[in-house]
Amino acid sequence: MNPPDAGVPDAEQIAASILESGSCAYSRNLGLTYTEATKARVRAELTVTEDHLTVPDILHGGAVMSIADDMGAVGAVLNLPPGARTSTIESKTNFVRGVPLGEKALGESTPVHLGRTTMVWQTRISREDGKLAAVVTQTQIVLPVEG
Amino acid sequence: MNPPDAGVPDAEQIAASILESGSCAYSRNLGLTYTEATKARVRAELTVTEDHLTVPDILHGGAVMSIADDMGAVGAVLNLPPGARTSTIESKTNFVRGVPLGEKALGESTPVHLGRTTMVWQTRISREDGKLAAVVTQTQIVLPVEG
Amino acid sequence: MNPPDAGVPDAEQIAASILESGSCAYSRNLGLTYTEATKARVRAELTVTEDHLTVPDILHGGAVMSIADDMGAVGAVLNLPPGARTSTIESKTNFVRGVPLGEKALGESTPVHLGRTTMVWQTRISREDGKLAAVVTQTQIVLPVEG
Amino acid sequence: MNPPDAGVPDAEQIAASILESGSCAYSRNLGLTYTEATKARVRAELTVTEDHLTVPDILHGGAVMSIADDMGAVGAVLNLPPGARTSTIESKTNFVRGVPLGEKALGESTPVHLGRTTMVWQTRISREDGKLAAVVTQTQIVLPVEG
Repeated sequence: MNPPDAGVPDAEQIAASILESGSCAYSRNLGLTYTEATKARVRAELTVTEDHLTVPDILHGGAVMSIADDMGAVGAVLNLPPGARTSTIESKTNFVRGVPLGEKALGESTPVHLGRTTMVWQTRISREDGKLAAVVTQTQIVLPVEG
Repeated sequence: MNPPDAGVPDAEQIAASILESGSCAYSRNLGLTYTEATKARVRAELTVTEDHLTVPDILHGGAVMSIADDMGAVGAVLNLPPGARTSTIESKTNFVRGVPLGEKALGESTPVHLGRTTMVWQTRISREDGKLAAVVTQTQIVLPVEG
Repeated sequence: MNPPDAGVPDAEQIAASILESGSCAYSRNLGLTYTEATKARVRAELTVTEDHLTVPDILHGGAVMSIADDMGAVGAVLNLPPGARTSTIESKTNFVRGVPLGEKALGESTPVHLGRTTMVWQTRISREDGKLAAVVTQTQIVLPVEG
Repeated sequence: MNPPDAGVPDAEQIAASILESGSCAYSRNLGLTYTEATKARVRAELTVTEDHLTVPDILHGGAVMSIADDMGAVGAVLNLPPGARTSTIESKTNFVRGVPLGEKALGESTPVHLGRTTMVWQTRISREDGKLAAVVTQTQIVLPVEG
């Protein structure tokens, strides 16, 4: 039974849940693990397996964009007013290097803009050697509390 | 053993293989099925399952971008000179509507530009009700035959 | 003195004004002339002069993006509810060919999505020979009537 | 008559020319002034005049993108191998705040990726109060020496 004041989870509770069990079914299935989730920075990683490969054998571009999409949305969620929701309205990726099989893709998302109607997050996906694999900039719309 | 003149597969052979067994490990695991693969148009579809869901229960934006990324690359591959390769160098998505659980996401990719050094492909992802879910524009670089 | 029912100009009045005298100081200075302005399509053109040139002597990419930015905003304005305003929140351009000195850049904008909170417009900039010069996709946020 | 060793100007000579007299006709007409031009960072500024205004009275989005487009190309030019050329193949802008009449738009471009076939540059356009107005990410293709 929930305590009388359970209500809407706050950013700290959301972050704890994401760090423990991921953000959603899709990103869990993808293998994305969150290692940091604060209002100012989100970090997550994914180890490239056979299931993630395109031709040739590197992490598929769709997986790269999936990582960023999920992370940017998490960052936005942590900055929402209580009860508000968010949705990604657009996303732009520049791919600069592949992430090979067996290595980790390391994502770091930081806010470019935290507004009342939109937020802009940028995610850098790097390889274990520290080199940049991709950079993603996405806009999250802030959907106010209904009613 | 391959016949002496096996060499590089042509666009028709590549298309047949993709229609039969998909384009790569990642998109097969995602559940993407190709229904048309020509130089002028690529079509593919994916039925949204529990594994594809974000919060709330619609197709994850990363999956939407994965579908398009894969399809645009297939379109580019079908237009490459023999022996050349391609890589997605950038991709831009506008998300306009969610695709609900149990429904199909229907992708259609067409070329915006077919150049010698780059190609630009645009993919519309629609829902079964015919409404647009997302539009993706991506650039494929053409990597010439080595050596 | 305004007649009692002057109020907010409607789409037809806005379109007439734009066709006659352009949309704003910046686009007038640029040399952009509107030839069609409806809810479903906007057309405009610009003749490339010495003042528009980059190195080498083609229409500067910034001018290409300026044309589209202005046109997409005009398209959005024509679809706004009375009293609402719009602002471009993001814009993406793919450049595929240059427009030479002395030729016209011909822009055509059509809506990709007309929503209550955002609109997405796509602008194709072509050359007089009919070949595509650039394609631009932009998101306009709809700012509701204040108060 | 050129001295026998005049040849192709090097990055230092190009930078000096741009700092003194701008990069091209279009950006000069726009009012863009370069204040720093190195391989690792480019800075430029523009004072918003009546000629730059959209409705309402802020710097037009097309001018914002023009500033970035020019600056990113300058950054790429400074990193080209001797004799090679560059062209912007795509550009993505997120607009977050307007720059008012009479104030300066301050641009700073830094490389995200410096490759042999493409370079990616990111430009932040800020206001005099230090707040971000827009962020632009663009891809420059490297066109090798002909012949």
